[in-house]
Amino acid sequence: MTKIACCQFAPHLGRVRSNVDESIDHFHKAVDEGARIVVFPELTSSGYAFSNSGEAQAASEQIDGYAVSSWKQAADERNAVIVAGFCETNEHERPYNSAAVLVPGQDPVIYRKAHLWDAERTIFTPGDGAPPVIDTEHGRIAVVICYDLEFPEWIRIPALGGAELICAPVNWPRVPRPTNERPGEVVRTQAQASMNRVAIAACDRAGAERGIDWTSASVIVDANGWPIDMANLDQNLNQIVIADIDLSESRSKKLSCFSDVLADRRTDLYFAPADYLTQAALRKDNQQIQR
Amino acid sequence: MTKIACCQFAPHLGRVRSNVDESIDHFHKAVDEGARIVVFPELTSSGYAFSNSGEAQAASEQIDGYAVSSWKQAADERNAVIVAGFCETNEHERPYNSAAVLVPGQDPVIYRKAHLWDAERTIFTPGDGAPPVIDTEHGRIAVVICYDLEFPEWIRIPALGGAELICAPVNWPRVPRPTNERPGEVVRTQAQASMNRVAIAACDRAGAERGIDWTSASVIVDANGWPIDMANLDQNLNQIVIADIDLSESRSKKLSCFSDVLADRRTDLYFAPADYLTQAALRKDNQQIQR
Repeated sequence: MTKIACCQFAPHLGRVRSNVDESIDHFHKAVDEGARIVVFPELTSSGYAFSNSGEAQAASEQIDGYAVSSWKQAADERNAVIVAGFCETNEHERPYNSAAVLVPGQDPVIYRKAHLWDAERTIFTPGDGAPPVIDTEHGRIAVVICYDLEFPEWIRIPALGGAELICAPVNWPRVPRPTNERPGEVVRTQAQASMNRVAIAACDRAGAERGIDWTSASVIVDANGWPIDMANLDQNLNQIVIADIDLSESRSKKLSCFSDVLADRRTDLYFAPADYLTQAALRKDNQQIQR
Repeated sequence: MTKIACCQFAPHLGRVRSNVDESIDHFHKAVDEGARIVVFPELTSSGYAFSNSGEAQAASEQIDGYAVSSWKQAADERNAVIVAGFCETNEHERPYNSAAVLVPGQDPVIYRKAHLWDAERTIFTPGDGAPPVIDTEHGRIAVVICYDLEFPEWIRIPALGGAELICAPVNWPRVPRPTNERPGEVVRTQAQASMNRVAIAACDRAGAERGIDWTSASVIVDANGWPIDMANLDQNLNQIVIADIDLSESRSKKLSCFSDVLADRRTDLYFAPADYLTQAALRKDNQQIQR
């Protein structure tokens, strides 16, 4: 069993030092509760709701900046893994929406969000690298960021790479949902976990920011797709979501005697041109891709 | 709005004529309630729990057999679409686990299950064709069967082909789940619907068969991923699950001003060899595929 925590809190737009310092306060609390892997929200260091790319650039840092250096020091001191989002400087270009993985005693590993949500494409540069899969003493962990989680093609990549836990810093904007329904993002996180038999820890943020209310639905899901701990959805507040997860469960992809979520893929069929696709549909799709 | 129904019932193993006749009784009830598209379970004509391929062969029929002919006649008479599973004869080979789509006035369209669950691989021949997408007066409908629904690669294909509703005959074996959790199959159906913005009608079966208890969790999910009607999970009984669905919702893939579930895919990245995959992981994956 590995104790995993998501520290849901409310970073303030542009206040890098105080946001990072606050995240480290939460980290110490989570480690005091026994957590060995601690996940923070998307853009923990900078906040999210930038009006333009220049604002984001001003709150961005290099990998040797205050955010990643402070997290590395804290991770080393407490011998616990940190996964946290930060706004990463990109010389002469829009910054990246990145996440740093700090494994004690190892160099920081950086992932850059590949699927940019909505107006983020006017703020950030999309990443072009696959989600890294990193060996730790607890198991192999991977990282994706928010909207990345909505693309099953993207989650298959670390699953095939042997990830046992996918850490996902997220900022889920609150949208209407039917009474008694979980947020759709949580449902899709459960599905991605079970379709790949990999645990997922998604750390959402609390509060509101320039008119955006956050869902505050941090959740830790096991390899069977069941939420083991989830934030109290009635309280859009700072919360530590924490769960003991048996990451070795992710090593078996078996669903039954013969069935296996990865081996049963019909890769012989997925990439062949599908003859029933009308030319019109193909054209439309190509236009979408090129946009 | 289109009224869609799932007729959850309990076919008896091997009794093709009486199973088909009973399905048509349920069809008339659903049409009397206003349904224009009616989905039945996987292997409606034959039952599921065959001990071996010979037993399945004995309950199999060609496309011009009693099952598909009777459904075609009923669909034409009532001017409503039928989607139903049947055991399809495959000369000199194991039969197919197929589904027929009967659109009034059109020839039957057949789909053969591509992802065989567990011991099905000892009973059936897997299909090699993509899910068909069929124009109807209500919109474009596609069909997949049970375990197919667990593979996001497979659901993308009809979504890209313009499907507005995916009809899924299923037989979901009951497995343990935490208290107050929906069956995982329902969660994944919700996720597949919302990740593709396509409605899904999954018709499960009732009863038990040779020691297999069925989940009896028929569900109709809209393009946002919300269940509009779902079987009463406390009653493993015959039920007609019925919902009005606006299939035109599936035509827009937009989630926000800029975001679009299909256009936002990073197809430039999905199929490239992922350099972080260790050779060991790649070898393991290839072995799994070749198995």
